[in-house]
Amino acid sequence: MNLKSLQQQLLPKIETHLQTFLDNQPFELTPGLKEMLSYHMGWENGGRPGKRIRPLLTLLCNQAFGGALSDAFPAAVSLEYLHNFTLIHDDIEDRSPQRHGQDTVWYRWGIPQAINAGDAMFSIAQLAMLGLRETCPNDVALHAAHRLNEVCLHLTQGQYLDISFEYEDSVPLETYLMMIEGKTGALVALAAELGGLTAGKHASIIRTLSEFGRNLGIAFQIQDDFLGIWGDPKITGKSTASDITTKKKTLPILYGLQNSTEFASSWQVVSPTSKQVQHMADLLETCGAKDYVKQHAEHTTDQAFAALETLFPNHGEGNNYAQALFEMCEVLLARKM
Amino acid sequence: MNLKSLQQQLLPKIETHLQTFLDNQPFELTPGLKEMLSYHMGWENGGRPGKRIRPLLTLLCNQAFGGALSDAFPAAVSLEYLHNFTLIHDDIEDRSPQRHGQDTVWYRWGIPQAINAGDAMFSIAQLAMLGLRETCPNDVALHAAHRLNEVCLHLTQGQYLDISFEYEDSVPLETYLMMIEGKTGALVALAAELGGLTAGKHASIIRTLSEFGRNLGIAFQIQDDFLGIWGDPKITGKSTASDITTKKKTLPILYGLQNSTEFASSWQVVSPTSKQVQHMADLLETCGAKDYVKQHAEHTTDQAFAALETLFPNHGEGNNYAQALFEMCEVLLARKM
Repeated sequence: MNLKSLQQQLLPKIETHLQTFLDNQPFELTPGLKEMLSYHMGWENGGRPGKRIRPLLTLLCNQAFGGALSDAFPAAVSLEYLHNFTLIHDDIEDRSPQRHGQDTVWYRWGIPQAINAGDAMFSIAQLAMLGLRETCPNDVALHAAHRLNEVCLHLTQGQYLDISFEYEDSVPLETYLMMIEGKTGALVALAAELGGLTAGKHASIIRTLSEFGRNLGIAFQIQDDFLGIWGDPKITGKSTASDITTKKKTLPILYGLQNSTEFASSWQVVSPTSKQVQHMADLLETCGAKDYVKQHAEHTTDQAFAALETLFPNHGEGNNYAQALFEMCEVLLARKM
Repeated sequence: MNLKSLQQQLLPKIETHLQTFLDNQPFELTPGLKEMLSYHMGWENGGRPGKRIRPLLTLLCNQAFGGALSDAFPAAVSLEYLHNFTLIHDDIEDRSPQRHGQDTVWYRWGIPQAINAGDAMFSIAQLAMLGLRETCPNDVALHAAHRLNEVCLHLTQGQYLDISFEYEDSVPLETYLMMIEGKTGALVALAAELGGLTAGKHASIIRTLSEFGRNLGIAFQIQDDFLGIWGDPKITGKSTASDITTKKKTLPILYGLQNSTEFASSWQVVSPTSKQVQHMADLLETCGAKDYVKQHAEHTTDQAFAALETLFPNHGEGNNYAQALFEMCEVLLARKM
C-alpha cells in the first residue's frame, strides 16, 4: 500500500469528519456565518478543498504507531481548521484577493466579517481538539489543547515578524528563519506530534516526531523560496523569478541584499523589466544565494528524514504507514503534492 | 466587608496575575508583539486598565461558594484576556480609533498587526484557561476550556449579526436581542459559571450561575441602549441622544423604526440637527420605545437578581462575597461602576 492509495482512503474520511464537525455546531441562527466558513473550506459550488496535508500527517503518524484512527480524528480535524483560520486572517493581512481559484473571504464579504469568520474558525479548531476527551485519556486531551495554543502563539509570533519585514530594508537571515519556523514549522511539528500522542506514545517519541515535523515544514518553506526564483514556471504556475517581480523578501533575496551590493542596488528599482529581473536572478546565483538556499533546504530535509529514520528504521520497512510517511516527505519536497 | 473593599483587595491581585501570565509567555524574540498586547491592556505609559468586571465576577462567585481563590485565578485571567481579544478585533471591525482614552491597536500599528495581535491574545486566553489543570481536577479544566470555546463561537455569532445589521434597513427585535445575548450575555454567563466550577460546584448550581450572568450581561447592554438616548450627558460622558446622532441601531431605535412611521422617516435624514435629534428622541418616547426598553431592562435585571437569590437567599445574608455580588449587580446596573 503506497502513499497514493492511503491518500485515496484517508482524504474522503478527513473531508467527512471536517464537514460533520461543522454541521454539528449550532449555526441555526447564523447560517450566513456558516456559509463563509464552508466557502473557505472549498465546499461551496465551484470551490476546491486544500491538500489537507496536516491532518494526513497526523493520521499517518498515528497509524504508523499502530494507533486507532478514530482516536486521532479530533486532532486531525482541529489542525485543518486551525490552518484555515490562519489563512483567512493571512489573506486579509496580505490583501490577497484570491486563494484556491476563488475570491478570498475578505474580498467577498469585507474585512470586518472576514476577521470575525476567522475567529469563529479558530474557536471551532479549539472545540475539535477538545473532542479528544472523548477518544483519549483526559491528560492527553489537555496536553494536546495546551500544545495547540502554544503553537498558535508561535504562529502569531512568526506572522508578527513577517508583517514587520515589509517595513524593514533588511532582515537578518536568522530572524527570517525564525519567522519560517513560527509560521510553517510549528504547526507541521504539532501535526506529527499529535499522531504519536493519540497512539499513546511517550515523551521521547513525541519529541522526535516534533523534530521531524518542524524540519519538514521548514524545508518545505525554504524550497518554496528557492522555487520562487529558480522554479520551472511550468511546474510552479508562476512566472520566472516571480518573487523578485513581486518584491517578496524571501531567503535568497535577503542573502543577496546582504552579500551583493550590485543586487542590493538593483533591488531599489520599483518596477523592474523582465530583463532586469533575469539579471537580478543571475546576480543572486553569482553571489552564492542559490547555493546557500539549496544547502539550507537540503540540510533541513536531511534532518527531517533522519528523525523519521530514528522512529522507523530502514525507511519504514515492514510498516506501510511509515513508508507512506517517507514517501509523503519525498513527494512534498519534490513539489508533486 | 462591602463590594468596594473587596474590589480594593482583588483588583490589584487580578492585575498582577494578568501581568505575570503575559510575562511568562515566550516573547523574547518578538518584544514588539508583547508591547502591543501590554499597551492594549492599559499597562504602557499613559494607559489605564479596564474595569476587570469579568474576572471580578468569577472570583466573587468562587469565594461566595467557599472556593480557593488560587484555584479560580487561571479562569479569571483567561476571561479578561478573552474579553480584550474581542475588543482588539471589534475596534478594527468598527473602525474605532480610540478606547480608554488612547489610540486603539489597529489605529496605532495598522490593521494587519492588530488582527494578528488579537489572535495572539486569543491564544493567551486559551493557555490561561488550560492553567486550570494545575489548580483543578482534569475534568474541570477540560470542561472549562470547552465552555470557553462554545462561548467564543457564540461571541462570533453575535458579532456576525451585529456587523450584518449595519447593512440592513430594519432588524427584528428578537434578532437584535439574540445578538446582545451572544455579544455580551454569553461571556458574563461564563464568568459566573467558572466561579462555581472552580469552587467544585455541580451542574444545577452552575446552570443557575449561568442564568444569573447571562441576564446580568443582557440587562447591562439593554440599559446601555437606554442611556444612549435618555442618559444624562453628565454621567454617560456622551451628548444627549448620542446613538441617534451616530445612527447606531440600538433597541429603542429598532423599536421606533418598526412602530412609528414618523420616526422611520426622520431616521432617513443623514446629518440631523440637534433639534431634529431631540424631536426623534421625543418620537421614540411617544411611540412607546422608552417604556418598552425600560421594561425589558427591568425584566432581565429581575431575572438576574432572582437567579442570584436562588443561590444566596435573603440577599446573601451571612455571606460577604454573596452580598458583594448583589451589590455589584446594583452598581453595574446603576452605572456607577
